[in-house]
Amino acid sequence: MIKTDILIIGAGPTGLFAVFEAGLLKLKCHLIDALPQAGGQCSEIYPKKPIYDIPGFPEVLAGELVDNLMEQIKPFQPGFTLGERAETIKKLDDGSFLVTTNKGTEHNAPIVAIAGGLGSFEPRKPLLENISKFEDNGVAYMIKDPEVYRNKKVVIAGGGDSALDWSIFLANIASQVTLVHRRNEFRGALDSVEKVQELKNQGKINLITPAEIISLNGDDTLESVLVRKISNANEEILLEVDDFIPLFGLSPKLGPIGDWGLEIEKNAIKVNTFDYQTNIPGIFAIGDVNTYPGKLKLILCGFHEATLMCQSAFQIIFPDKKYVMKYTTVGGVSGFDGSTKEAPKAVVKAIE
Amino acid sequence: MIKTDILIIGAGPTGLFAVFEAGLLKLKCHLIDALPQAGGQCSEIYPKKPIYDIPGFPEVLAGELVDNLMEQIKPFQPGFTLGERAETIKKLDDGSFLVTTNKGTEHNAPIVAIAGGLGSFEPRKPLLENISKFEDNGVAYMIKDPEVYRNKKVVIAGGGDSALDWSIFLANIASQVTLVHRRNEFRGALDSVEKVQELKNQGKINLITPAEIISLNGDDTLESVLVRKISNANEEILLEVDDFIPLFGLSPKLGPIGDWGLEIEKNAIKVNTFDYQTNIPGIFAIGDVNTYPGKLKLILCGFHEATLMCQSAFQIIFPDKKYVMKYTTVGGVSGFDGSTKEAPKAVVKAIE
Ligand SMILES: Cc1cc2nc3c(=O)[nH]c(=O)nc-3n(C[C@H](O)[C@H](O)[C@H](O)COP(=O)(O)OP(=O)(O)OC[C@H]3O[C@@H](n4cnc5c(N)ncnc54)[C@H](O)[C@@H]3O)c2cc1C
Ligand SMILES: Cc1cc2nc3c(=O)[nH]c(=O)nc-3n(C[C@H](O)[C@H](O)[C@H](O)COP(=O)(O)OP(=O)(O)OC[C@H]3O[C@@H](n4cnc5c(N)ncnc54)[C@H](O)[C@@H]3O)c2cc1C
Repeated sequence: MIKTDILIIGAGPTGLFAVFEAGLLKLKCHLIDALPQAGGQCSEIYPKKPIYDIPGFPEVLAGELVDNLMEQIKPFQPGFTLGERAETIKKLDDGSFLVTTNKGTEHNAPIVAIAGGLGSFEPRKPLLENISKFEDNGVAYMIKDPEVYRNKKVVIAGGGDSALDWSIFLANIASQVTLVHRRNEFRGALDSVEKVQELKNQGKINLITPAEIISLNGDDTLESVLVRKISNANEEILLEVDDFIPLFGLSPKLGPIGDWGLEIEKNAIKVNTFDYQTNIPGIFAIGDVNTYPGKLKLILCGFHEATLMCQSAFQIIFPDKKYVMKYTTVGGVSGFDGSTKEAPKAVVKAIE
Repeated sequence: MIKTDILIIGAGPTGLFAVFEAGLLKLKCHLIDALPQAGGQCSEIYPKKPIYDIPGFPEVLAGELVDNLMEQIKPFQPGFTLGERAETIKKLDDGSFLVTTNKGTEHNAPIVAIAGGLGSFEPRKPLLENISKFEDNGVAYMIKDPEVYRNKKVVIAGGGDSALDWSIFLANIASQVTLVHRRNEFRGALDSVEKVQELKNQGKINLITPAEIISLNGDDTLESVLVRKISNANEEILLEVDDFIPLFGLSPKLGPIGDWGLEIEKNAIKVNTFDYQTNIPGIFAIGDVNTYPGKLKLILCGFHEATLMCQSAFQIIFPDKKYVMKYTTVGGVSGFDGSTKEAPKAVVKAIE
């Protein structure tokens, strides 16, 4: 069982920054996210697009912002449970919470901070009869570790950025990459589309369009997929493959958290504006996932909410301690890894 | 009379970022600050020190943060009244506010946002009998435009960073720079202390320590100052000078704003947490200057408050318009200067 001070559900920008503010208060954090990587919407939906309203950044790519946040929180050594969805919550006798994921991983903490954004990102799955049988046995809807595909025969389906970018990336890793899409046209960043065209011309990506996968075959694990060209319904191609990766997009669903007894309004969790606590003491909701009068679903608002939340978390964990806030410029940053950052001190020195 | 949509009192980080958020809503801003430059505490107290808790910046110098904010708000062409203190406020018949500074400059706007931080920065003045007579006639407590001192004979008094840094800066501009301090020891950044030592050795700064100014002489304008060495009370030096600049630090005072009829608590202005509006409709208070349950005097909190405030300002100015928030990544940023920033659009393109 994973034990921590603040269990954060959702590793988007809000959850990540909460790690930093908690760290300043000497509280440890662990994050759970359904996605295989940190960054929430910024990483999953628009990593290469610029954001213009992060204070102090006239322009920053969403992916860069996440990288910066990861760098900022590094001294506080957050733990991560990635690729798993927080499913159930239980209050234990000692007042702490037990949160279990869809894969059975157990987490225990006195404070839970839900930073779940628009919800847990869940894949849109193709309608293929026996697909669930092959999940984790040749079929995956997200790529957690690309090394898994080294020297494998891989079929990717989809027509957007994810399908394009993973085809490009795996072209150097897998022994064979086949990209299947229902149309000839792909929708994505110009350079991604052009790169796939180039790799196709070089024979490094095997392109089948317009086409769709119509069946999956294999005993325990996937052995082949049947592709049907849409232009000519008669033409069917049987591909021997190790892996089938349909990338039809992820859509966020509030999901199981909706049943945790929290007050919900407009598909978001109601909180107060003092410390963004929910109707269940000890459970906070910060960032896109919460709602209160005047709420704006903006990254910079999540940062503020995370900061105020940590103050109350500290008081709940240490009811008898009085925390006196110190500016980072004055007090520096002392990491759990022993690292320290500190502003250069003024000197007192005679001039002769 | 200066007219604008949102009149912002205080050009610290909070006031500056409010310009950006207002700009996204097509509202124009004008800022008043008692200091000669923008940036509030960040510029005045610790421009060369690192801040560690600005989200997305593992480390940023306070002065750099201000530069970044100035760059970010540039498209929205804010106006500035610098070196003047907002003194009085009056509600006009049309419901708008008239704010007048200590120098008589008048500003008119339907919305006032007080982003006054810890208060208006006021200089600590030396106790010299006739000093007020020479204010603006040879005596200045802040340096607004260093060019004013070109080829002048200048005496600076003080022993901290401002005295050191301005002595260094003016050594290249003034015809003579004399630095007077009550002690031999200076307190400041190591490189500043060392640089002054070097300029003194080169004869570019005339150093008199330990010493103090004991009188100012001149008819209408300053003509000379009398310096007394503290080591030997008998030794007095009469310096012919054009300018005397005592830099003994600035201390913030809530000042006249305290008498505007706003609810004050712990030297700060009480606001609600819906839109950070004060007890007077149309007057908001954001950043360090406000207080509410849970308030933290942090830069990142000021950013959030500025953002929510602008939404309500918009509704007050345009009661009949419905504003639908658009992400900057999606809608881009259209400056009042005709500039536009926009994320590259996805293409839809066939791969053959
Ligand atoms: C195209 C686009 C452009 C945008 N542009 C801007 C912009 O310019 N400026 C701006 O401020 N904002 C913008 N946004 C919004 C911004 O991305 C969000 O406000 C921000 O990502 C919210 O951060 P968060 O951490 O609260 O949630 P999210 O980023 O949504 O992260 C939440 C995470 O929680 C996980 N999660 C949820 N439930 C569970 C569960 N039960 N178990 C495990 N994991 C779970 C999800 O998988 C997700 O990764 C944009 C959004 C989009 C889609
Ligand atoms: C040494 C030090 C280290 C710090 N470190 C950190 C840190 O690490 N992290 C962090 O988040 N914060 C830190 N802070 C605090 C941070 O600087 C403040 O929270 C921030 O500056 C507040 O911004 P503001 O815009 O609200 O107000 P301010 O920066 O105080 O700006 C307010 C401005 O309003 C002007 N003003 C006020 N009244 C009037 C008037 N009547 N007329 C005209 N002008 C007026 C003032 O002159 C001033 O320039 C630190 C502060 C100090 C002093």
